[in-house]
Amino acid sequence: MVAAPASLDTLCINSIRMLAVDAVNKSNSGHPGLPMGCAPMGYTLWDKFLRHNPKNPKWFNRDRFVLSAGHGCMLLYALLHLTGYDSVTMEDIKQFRQLGSRTPGHPETFETDGVEVTAGPLGAGISNAVGLAIAEAHLAAKFNKPDAQVVDHFTYVIMGDGCNQEGVSSEACSLAGHLKLGKLIALYDDNQITIDGRTDVSFTEDVLKRYESYGWHVQHVEEGNTDINAISEAIANAKSVTNQPSLIKISTTIGFGSPNKSDTAGVHGAPLGEDEANLTRQQLGWTHPPFEIPQEVYDQYRKSIDRGKGLEEQWNLTLATYRNNYPAEAKEFERMLRGELPENWDKDLPIYTPEDKGQATRKHSQICLGALGPNIPELIGGSADLTHSNYTDIKGETGSFQSNSPEKRYLHFGVREHAMAAILNGIAYHNSGLIPYGGTFLVFADYMRGSMRLSALSELGVIYVLTHDSIGVGEDGPTHQPVETIPSLRAMPNMLVFRPGDGNETSGAYKLAIQNRNRPSALCLSRQGMDNQKNSSIEKVAFGGYVLEDCDGIPDLIFIGTGSELDLCVKAAKQLTSEGNKVRVVSMPCVELFEEQTSSYQEEVLPSSVRKRLVVEAAASFGWHKYIGLDGDSVTMSSFGTSAPGGVCLDKFGFTLDNVISKANRLLG
Amino acid sequence: MVAAPASLDTLCINSIRMLAVDAVNKSNSGHPGLPMGCAPMGYTLWDKFLRHNPKNPKWFNRDRFVLSAGHGCMLLYALLHLTGYDSVTMEDIKQFRQLGSRTPGHPETFETDGVEVTAGPLGAGISNAVGLAIAEAHLAAKFNKPDAQVVDHFTYVIMGDGCNQEGVSSEACSLAGHLKLGKLIALYDDNQITIDGRTDVSFTEDVLKRYESYGWHVQHVEEGNTDINAISEAIANAKSVTNQPSLIKISTTIGFGSPNKSDTAGVHGAPLGEDEANLTRQQLGWTHPPFEIPQEVYDQYRKSIDRGKGLEEQWNLTLATYRNNYPAEAKEFERMLRGELPENWDKDLPIYTPEDKGQATRKHSQICLGALGPNIPELIGGSADLTHSNYTDIKGETGSFQSNSPEKRYLHFGVREHAMAAILNGIAYHNSGLIPYGGTFLVFADYMRGSMRLSALSELGVIYVLTHDSIGVGEDGPTHQPVETIPSLRAMPNMLVFRPGDGNETSGAYKLAIQNRNRPSALCLSRQGMDNQKNSSIEKVAFGGYVLEDCDGIPDLIFIGTGSELDLCVKAAKQLTSEGNKVRVVSMPCVELFEEQTSSYQEEVLPSSVRKRLVVEAAASFGWHKYIGLDGDSVTMSSFGTSAPGGVCLDKFGFTLDNVISKANRLLG
Repeated sequence: MVAAPASLDTLCINSIRMLAVDAVNKSNSGHPGLPMGCAPMGYTLWDKFLRHNPKNPKWFNRDRFVLSAGHGCMLLYALLHLTGYDSVTMEDIKQFRQLGSRTPGHPETFETDGVEVTAGPLGAGISNAVGLAIAEAHLAAKFNKPDAQVVDHFTYVIMGDGCNQEGVSSEACSLAGHLKLGKLIALYDDNQITIDGRTDVSFTEDVLKRYESYGWHVQHVEEGNTDINAISEAIANAKSVTNQPSLIKISTTIGFGSPNKSDTAGVHGAPLGEDEANLTRQQLGWTHPPFEIPQEVYDQYRKSIDRGKGLEEQWNLTLATYRNNYPAEAKEFERMLRGELPENWDKDLPIYTPEDKGQATRKHSQICLGALGPNIPELIGGSADLTHSNYTDIKGETGSFQSNSPEKRYLHFGVREHAMAAILNGIAYHNSGLIPYGGTFLVFADYMRGSMRLSALSELGVIYVLTHDSIGVGEDGPTHQPVETIPSLRAMPNMLVFRPGDGNETSGAYKLAIQNRNRPSALCLSRQGMDNQKNSSIEKVAFGGYVLEDCDGIPDLIFIGTGSELDLCVKAAKQLTSEGNKVRVVSMPCVELFEEQTSSYQEEVLPSSVRKRLVVEAAASFGWHKYIGLDGDSVTMSSFGTSAPGGVCLDKFGFTLDNVISKANRLLG
Repeated sequence: MVAAPASLDTLCINSIRMLAVDAVNKSNSGHPGLPMGCAPMGYTLWDKFLRHNPKNPKWFNRDRFVLSAGHGCMLLYALLHLTGYDSVTMEDIKQFRQLGSRTPGHPETFETDGVEVTAGPLGAGISNAVGLAIAEAHLAAKFNKPDAQVVDHFTYVIMGDGCNQEGVSSEACSLAGHLKLGKLIALYDDNQITIDGRTDVSFTEDVLKRYESYGWHVQHVEEGNTDINAISEAIANAKSVTNQPSLIKISTTIGFGSPNKSDTAGVHGAPLGEDEANLTRQQLGWTHPPFEIPQEVYDQYRKSIDRGKGLEEQWNLTLATYRNNYPAEAKEFERMLRGELPENWDKDLPIYTPEDKGQATRKHSQICLGALGPNIPELIGGSADLTHSNYTDIKGETGSFQSNSPEKRYLHFGVREHAMAAILNGIAYHNSGLIPYGGTFLVFADYMRGSMRLSALSELGVIYVLTHDSIGVGEDGPTHQPVETIPSLRAMPNMLVFRPGDGNETSGAYKLAIQNRNRPSALCLSRQGMDNQKNSSIEKVAFGGYVLEDCDGIPDLIFIGTGSELDLCVKAAKQLTSEGNKVRVVSMPCVELFEEQTSSYQEEVLPSSVRKRLVVEAAASFGWHKYIGLDGDSVTMSSFGTSAPGGVCLDKFGFTLDNVISKANRLLG
């Protein structure tokens, strides 16, 4: 292979390649292969199509660009730098993958302006992009007027073979096809190489045909290393297809330009080394030392700055028209963009007394959604095909987000939990005030855990509505009965795990989930009913844990309960009290929030001198010993459940008044 | 709709339907819709094709039948009962979904003979089936001789819309197409209904085209409610296609026979009720009361018993020929079927002394695989496209399991973690002695957690090789650095989580993982090197936790360490000892095994009187307080990691000698 003559286009493309080579060499770690192969499509897309404003990365109406193959992040950092984002200076590029840099080893939204989604776990980015496109389509349908299209952008993706092999992308792209998301355009870097070698060891499916089966528009650019006209044409075609998402397969050579390492797995995730970098320079006709970019290249790329300024100004005019002609809508739209909740959004959250009939917390959850929905128009979500079990509908609303009704806010995700979570993340990444929620059975949190982790890491206020939260599920049996799921979610940093114990606590959990826009919430909700407590309240949930029932003086024993087992604690405490013991009941609907309280509050609730502590929760005890200590005990699960009616299951595994009291008495000695 | 005239075939089909209706009615819980719709394909497949022996459900060479849509388990229980399995009597059917019954709410291998895989979590069964077919193809290639085909069976699946929406099935079926698994035949119950209603709310892709894109042979039976000839022809065609897996889309009506509920989501997962059951009887022309099956139906179905006996006898003759002509191979084959390990299988597991150069435990793992591979020919596995990072290759072996080399035992799963785990489960479900293992980065255990849970629940001895086990991963950053992953796996019942702290402990972990054929093992292995310890050994790992370094008398403080942090504990103890403290170091490579030791052993290692305990592990502390108690402390992670060189990360988050000693001194007061 010989380099094309150094036209300005070629120089621009090779700038990306060499920045990748040199940054990875300098950090002695990273993935040069993808940026070298994708440089032509990256340049073409960013220079000729992407509507963005480098000097205002958060400009609302920008096109979204997602690098789903996040390991190739030097492509993105190079583009951000070259087009003039302040977030990625040449110094940042030199600090690639170093502590505290803005150029981490995979792109992270919370580190670098201009990064739209946190990518690296494969398949996540393209699936987030489906969420971004849903958000755009929804807001456009909701707000746009013939004379003022305030929401109007594309979502572009670069994805690789890995993204296409991951199941999450299959789920998400099938749904995208169903929803006819015409403004979603994915460029598939078909380089025939993965870490294990050539893709023909494991991946020989006809990808374009697969996407066609989903209802996508598909194209193939056969020479993606040099033919930027073909890439350009394909993107233009894709833009013109408005009722289908588009996949453009672009055949490239991984590590293009490296004479000895291109087209090998060796260039995927390891530095070229100095010698090969020099040979690459020769092959590409690149005469500049590391980290030096010709001015003409900057000049070309940074036309984006003026273009972007113009685009934003143009949009501001549109917005002005919108404000003028549709003041109410504009007020609402701008409130959302500011991320402000409507006034009195929580005014209809229900409050209960013990006289109110006990219900399942999944039912309380439905009531909360019905109470919040009308007051929070930006609440948007649905279920992974369990609407009538999760009760995720918003009372009084009909219809769902479909290709002909994108203004609707109910999403039928299908039996696609992982895509659901990734799409909810995408909606949150859109950063336009939408508050995404999604439901499935708690046990199937396992299916979407990869994306739940990204919600937590990327500080996205996604609300997970996870019903059927214990062996109380009953007959469906152990495949459907979570035991370890709640602990496994509590183990995750930045995830709020709520397990409300009655109606008030469910209202409180919802209030906090809505308020927490920078961390996800997992609402663990029962299938079965439970009594309402006398001393619970919406406000107390904010403490995470609080004294629900108390004795005079220092307790002999403290019960700690959550969810459907809270009432068991209350009843046990009552009986033990009547037998002359001093017993306290602590309700702990959210361990994470309790741990954020002052140590004096924590000491007040759980005095360190009181070592007789009994946790009651129909889940594995794992994690609870932080409060149980070495001297307490628990009524919890130590195995998987079994198929039987819910009450029978609970009995069998010891969630009975007798067993709780007997364990308590053993502690009381 | 009017019922077809009550031919014997129709009676046989309606027997399934009515058993499902009546069992679900009696338990007042369950899913009648699928069995009613799939009865014709179930009958056709089991009566005309399935080679099995009802009186010996474990006969090795049987065809495997997988009900991937596990919620429709009454279909399977009806077929097991009708064809004469002792595991499902009519009394069992009456006990559907009751405590202790052999007919739980979803099929579970450990409850019911004749159930080949535990199903319910959608997409799992079809993906397990890919593993079953891989196992068959591998063993056939390895053992069969022209005059004695001792391994020769099909794997059949019934799957629904839900299975086809789940990403795991996309991953697995793409791989199945790549591997040209001609003896895998899936019947897709295309009933157009899911829980949320008609599939057209979320699932309108062209499923057959998708499977074609994977390389499958596809067919469509348009009238699946009655046309058993067409079903029969399609299955026969599928069998004749030997170089492609087959998908037969069979269009059916969910709840067929129910005049008011068929073709609605209402019949998917709820009892028909007595009235509708009666109307269904009328519509189907079924004159029998609940749980009564006409003798002619039994007579027809139970021809399977004689057929099965004959098939097994025939196979026994083949086996006799095999024994006679190929005694060495037969000995090996039969050893495997008995589930016996070869003699001295562990003889080459390496032992280390502190003088041996410290290495990453992922490297030790590779050495173990190289030491075990030649001695355990039934070890089979690979990596989800991270072979050269996970080091999952078996030293000295080349080539991989491909369509033209199924005798090879290395599997390139592609970037498909979830399918990998499901396929490993399938290989284990084959129950032919194969010991499956698979590798990915530990953090991506999240992607396959749904199937890891099924390994644990179904008691499958799958070995998960999970490298890059902490922030020590370094530059790849927080998306690739597990923090909560180890605790989340420890929370899972029946999962052995190993985090070895040097070479000997890695050898010990492998030994135990191989020995434990009824529970999965997760080996958490470092990217970075660590020193070998003086007092570690293969044998001690079996205790889960043990005293690695000790003092005279009762210690003032106990360190508990694992993995790459073990040596930090040893060094800190050394320094603190030199300063006059009595310090013990406990190595805890497997918490679960430690918890299985006698309480006196546990007390010996961790005396309850010693409350100054310091856990050091580069993961979330979640779960450790069972040993830390209320008075100890930990050097652990309380947030996600960051992108920086591994050593820098470890420093930043406090995994330094200084910090460990300072925390210890605070405890020592």
